[in-house]
Amino acid sequence: MPKKKRDQRDEQDQRDRSVRELLRLPVGERIDLSAYDAGGTPGGPDGKKAGAAATAALGPRLAELQERLYAASTAGDGRRLLLVLQGMDTSGKGGTVKHVIGHFNPSGCRIRAFKAPTEEERAHPFLWRITRALPVAGEIGIFDRSHYEDVLIARVRELAAREVIEDRYGEIDRFEKSLADEGVTVIKVFLHISYEEQRARLLERLDNPDKHWKFNPGDIEERALWPAYQEAYGIALERCATDRTPWYLVPADHKWYRNWAISSLLLEHLEELDPRYPEADFDVAGCRARLVAS
Amino acid sequence: MPKKKRDQRDEQDQRDRSVRELLRLPVGERIDLSAYDAGGTPGGPDGKKAGAAATAALGPRLAELQERLYAASTAGDGRRLLLVLQGMDTSGKGGTVKHVIGHFNPSGCRIRAFKAPTEEERAHPFLWRITRALPVAGEIGIFDRSHYEDVLIARVRELAAREVIEDRYGEIDRFEKSLADEGVTVIKVFLHISYEEQRARLLERLDNPDKHWKFNPGDIEERALWPAYQEAYGIALERCATDRTPWYLVPADHKWYRNWAISSLLLEHLEELDPRYPEADFDVAGCRARLVAS
Repeated sequence: MPKKKRDQRDEQDQRDRSVRELLRLPVGERIDLSAYDAGGTPGGPDGKKAGAAATAALGPRLAELQERLYAASTAGDGRRLLLVLQGMDTSGKGGTVKHVIGHFNPSGCRIRAFKAPTEEERAHPFLWRITRALPVAGEIGIFDRSHYEDVLIARVRELAAREVIEDRYGEIDRFEKSLADEGVTVIKVFLHISYEEQRARLLERLDNPDKHWKFNPGDIEERALWPAYQEAYGIALERCATDRTPWYLVPADHKWYRNWAISSLLLEHLEELDPRYPEADFDVAGCRARLVAS
Repeated sequence: MPKKKRDQRDEQDQRDRSVRELLRLPVGERIDLSAYDAGGTPGGPDGKKAGAAATAALGPRLAELQERLYAASTAGDGRRLLLVLQGMDTSGKGGTVKHVIGHFNPSGCRIRAFKAPTEEERAHPFLWRITRALPVAGEIGIFDRSHYEDVLIARVRELAAREVIEDRYGEIDRFEKSLADEGVTVIKVFLHISYEEQRARLLERLDNPDKHWKFNPGDIEERALWPAYQEAYGIALERCATDRTPWYLVPADHKWYRNWAISSLLLEHLEELDPRYPEADFDVAGCRARLVAS
């Protein structure tokens, strides 16, 4: 088949598949991140302007489904959503919270950014602080970093013995399985940026005094460990993925694509949950009559 | 002076004053809520369409100031904001969170809706659950109901002895003074709706099955106590107001006005705080060189 025709067929094929299918990493395989294009836009709109418009167009539907999820919880529906954001410095975890989570009613969101653990947190098992930050029924939880730091920076920086870290992969799997059993839809997103894009974004922070507060000289030391981090991610993405709790790889060099892709992932999961407004458990006509007379 | 001319002068005068001045309740006076027009739009834009546009136009400035507030906290600035929303059922506390707080980056907001206290909360002093929900440095906290419930519903429903409630006004004053001393700007907003508007909003919930979940037959019983609540508010608004922690009365029959007024109140307070991006405490040029070489 001539190349052009093949490309057209690929494009058509991409449009026919859900974003979930397009971005889901294979389960049970070692992930070599260098094989994935951080600048790609699989299934996405055609460029920045179209991307921003397409993302904005998803907003009302996302907001409505969030309201339904919350409403259902008032009648005993225990389901909830948890978006886990992982990625190298500058990969856009914070930007995702700002631009994607902004679609939702903030009162239904439970957002937590995990930093280096405090002394109190270190005194507990690594999942302790995670369980305390989980969304409750009807909520959308967002983790900016997560329990995965305990097999990422902890592995690269040797913050724990290797056998401790080896055990953690299994603990994470069991933990996420228990979440799924309890009605938590876990959406794990790895924001994939390139080494070059990270340099550009760090330089942007240095070259704008209003962004100096976002920069830490330690970011350069972390960057020097790029290959070790990519390897640690590859291992975590392999060992902590199941059919029920897969990983999604979102190419994140283009911010507009990242916003569109994560909005789409959230939408597809919420549509699958299909939460319903609960029916009245009281006498509507009677209440109406009393109210009109009041 | 002919009436028309006087009105014009009043209008000009309103435009010249800050929203804070226009909406601040007098300190140290008993407040008779029936003297305030819930359908008024003091200082506001000319109608719904203009109001929505004016509110949207405040968004970018609000978002920038929030970012500055957060940035400043990373360099030790302990200041923060706390918006306290009180008002009768359907007065728009939830709507304010959705429409006004939506201007902000959700990761810098700490939102808490206070419901009837849990058994654990009741076992503690009434301010216990409040202090646990306070914003930390750099954050904007939002309380949908608050410690005022303990002198409102508690007074009307006699949930505590009268002398206990009498003591609480003083406790609240001391508590809010200590917050102000710690760098918390407390913005207390009473959303003032009319008895008729509440009926209309409750009927709207009854007449739309998608809103039945928001309705509780108990709302009609609470409504029957309207005069007692208005009186309890009048007392709280008098006894818990100081020059540093005044109350703002926002006429709330018009949702567009409510959104504009609260956005404006937040903006004026943030502008007064005038938080600054911190200066770099590292060698910018050196970091830049290392980064370019990486």
